[in-house]
Amino acid sequence: MAGGIGSRFWPFSTNEKPKQFLDFFGTGRSLIQMTVDRFRPLVPIHNVLIVTNIAYREMILEQIPDLPVENILCEPARRNTAPCIAYATARIRAMVNEQRTKEQGQRTANIVVAPSDHLILNEAEFLRVVQEGFDFVEQNDALLTLGMKPTRPETGYGYIQKCRVESLECRVVESVKFKEVVKVKQFKEKPDLETAKQYVAAGDYLWNSGLFIWSLKSIENALTEHLPEVASIFAKGEKLMGTEQETAFIQEYFPQCPNISVDYGIMEKAKDVYVLPADFGWSDLGTWGSLHELSEKDADGNVATHCNAKFYNAHGNIVALDDKGQRTKDEGQKYVVIEGVDDMIVAQSGDVLLVCKKQDEQQIREFVKDYELFKL
Amino acid sequence: MAGGIGSRFWPFSTNEKPKQFLDFFGTGRSLIQMTVDRFRPLVPIHNVLIVTNIAYREMILEQIPDLPVENILCEPARRNTAPCIAYATARIRAMVNEQRTKEQGQRTANIVVAPSDHLILNEAEFLRVVQEGFDFVEQNDALLTLGMKPTRPETGYGYIQKCRVESLECRVVESVKFKEVVKVKQFKEKPDLETAKQYVAAGDYLWNSGLFIWSLKSIENALTEHLPEVASIFAKGEKLMGTEQETAFIQEYFPQCPNISVDYGIMEKAKDVYVLPADFGWSDLGTWGSLHELSEKDADGNVATHCNAKFYNAHGNIVALDDKGQRTKDEGQKYVVIEGVDDMIVAQSGDVLLVCKKQDEQQIREFVKDYELFKL
Repeated sequence: MAGGIGSRFWPFSTNEKPKQFLDFFGTGRSLIQMTVDRFRPLVPIHNVLIVTNIAYREMILEQIPDLPVENILCEPARRNTAPCIAYATARIRAMVNEQRTKEQGQRTANIVVAPSDHLILNEAEFLRVVQEGFDFVEQNDALLTLGMKPTRPETGYGYIQKCRVESLECRVVESVKFKEVVKVKQFKEKPDLETAKQYVAAGDYLWNSGLFIWSLKSIENALTEHLPEVASIFAKGEKLMGTEQETAFIQEYFPQCPNISVDYGIMEKAKDVYVLPADFGWSDLGTWGSLHELSEKDADGNVATHCNAKFYNAHGNIVALDDKGQRTKDEGQKYVVIEGVDDMIVAQSGDVLLVCKKQDEQQIREFVKDYELFKL
Repeated sequence: MAGGIGSRFWPFSTNEKPKQFLDFFGTGRSLIQMTVDRFRPLVPIHNVLIVTNIAYREMILEQIPDLPVENILCEPARRNTAPCIAYATARIRAMVNEQRTKEQGQRTANIVVAPSDHLILNEAEFLRVVQEGFDFVEQNDALLTLGMKPTRPETGYGYIQKCRVESLECRVVESVKFKEVVKVKQFKEKPDLETAKQYVAAGDYLWNSGLFIWSLKSIENALTEHLPEVASIFAKGEKLMGTEQETAFIQEYFPQCPNISVDYGIMEKAKDVYVLPADFGWSDLGTWGSLHELSEKDADGNVATHCNAKFYNAHGNIVALDDKGQRTKDEGQKYVVIEGVDDMIVAQSGDVLLVCKKQDEQQIREFVKDYELFKL
């Protein structure tokens, strides 16, 4: 999933070049490149589908040159994650049918759905967990989500409450083999700080990562059951998927989908929903604050990315300057002096400079709106 | 005088393009252009001398195209204001002698010495005061400085204490004609805040503006008496001034001058030192804080120059972004969001971004040093 614009990371992340295409850590690899690379040991590139906006098609081809061009699925409109997943599911169905025809065999598919702009530190553990999930969904008609063991009372994430493993309702059929998997009791919206603290103290809450694993059949059934209006749209185009008429079909019918998340539209309603608690150093990189937390800090807790920053009597700040390739190698990085301030975001990209308290970063969406009005 | 580098205005002001060459107020005129223009009604351009560093010669010719090229006096080294004034004095002596020879008459000159990077709001009043000063020094062998009536206990300026006009020592010979002029009792270094408050309350202190008026003869005599080592250097080159050998002479001998200000070297030592109290909206534009004070503010006391700034819960800040002509007209000015901070300087120019508390702006010199070390 690579259609978002990551507006809370403005001004780095913009409509023209959203967060997933940025090299946040100065490693030379963008978040989407890191995401694709992460799956390579498990998923051959011709089985990787990227659902995005037409505007980002060229950027994807440029950043992932070995991705088959037909594996980029372009949404003509933003409709949140459920229609995005339904589109990919329809295409995977066509791919499976195509292979079945060719090979005269019965084929299915296991699917992992991942945002393209998250950070995962321990890739080996990540792959182990995804493989565990594949094994689980191959043997169970279930929807599986990866739940992150919380390390702090984060208010920027949704939470998943596990069932107590002792409780009968929570036993997975093959509970021995998949002893790490537990049933989901309920999904929780982003909490306030007090509630988040209670969740972490309770011990049976996990962060909702937005990473899903299921079989083709299970997600098709769930779509039909819980989002019939979406399923029926894609049923119309079933024969067109993977053909030359797919684009025209999507262009016309995709915008008719409701704007709805897969969490709200399916996961919270379906019965056979399971969570695999995991711990592989995950962040959704949703905000400057989360980037600050994840980054290497100096002795005063300051972080500087993409620039040479010098801090004087300053603590807990994050400074990021993006030059979007306008800089020649000779010029070197920009030099920033930060004096006398604590816990600030100082970010510059393109024609925008942002100076904002970390604790007020939820206001960035408002700044972006004002900026866009100004630009008109 | 245009040889300074205005380092407290970093990163706008740099070695490569100091403060006097910058268009601070977005009027389309740099400070040095405004300074030259200010004198035009009183001083013909062929009588304007600009003492500066060789590095800035081209910039001056570009910014003041009608200035005769020989009127730019290039210092091969920075030696503060006394040698700078001695050099200009020597050249003016040569100009006067040249004219005397041509016209067979006895000629002298009245001189006004002005920094090139100060702001003066009321130009008519300024010209009136300078003319008053000319009239005074034409009739009196005296050194005159313009003293600014203080409007606040500024710690960034030196002060001049006037003699009480009743006191005998303070009476100027022609006291009726020059009733505004009073004798200087003493010069005072930049005070701390408490002392500055006492000065302002006392009523007999003026800000030392660095603007001087005297006759050619008076400054020559003062140099000979109080800075004989400087005077003797220029006596050596007397015959060379205004000739093709001047540059070579200056190149060799100017660096031998001591590094000393005219205030310390002459004004504080000479006897016939007078001050003309004046009030024409003056600032030395020494710091970001002084620019903030002088600029038009929004309802929250914020100032934005050279950019489109939007302030959220922010007060008393000054934001300045300089693009040094790298921007095309189509691109428009940069957009800055400032949230949750008070009394800050946010300034960007070239490859440098500065975020600093206004009250700590005296540290900017230190930042510049660190930056220059970093660049090595």
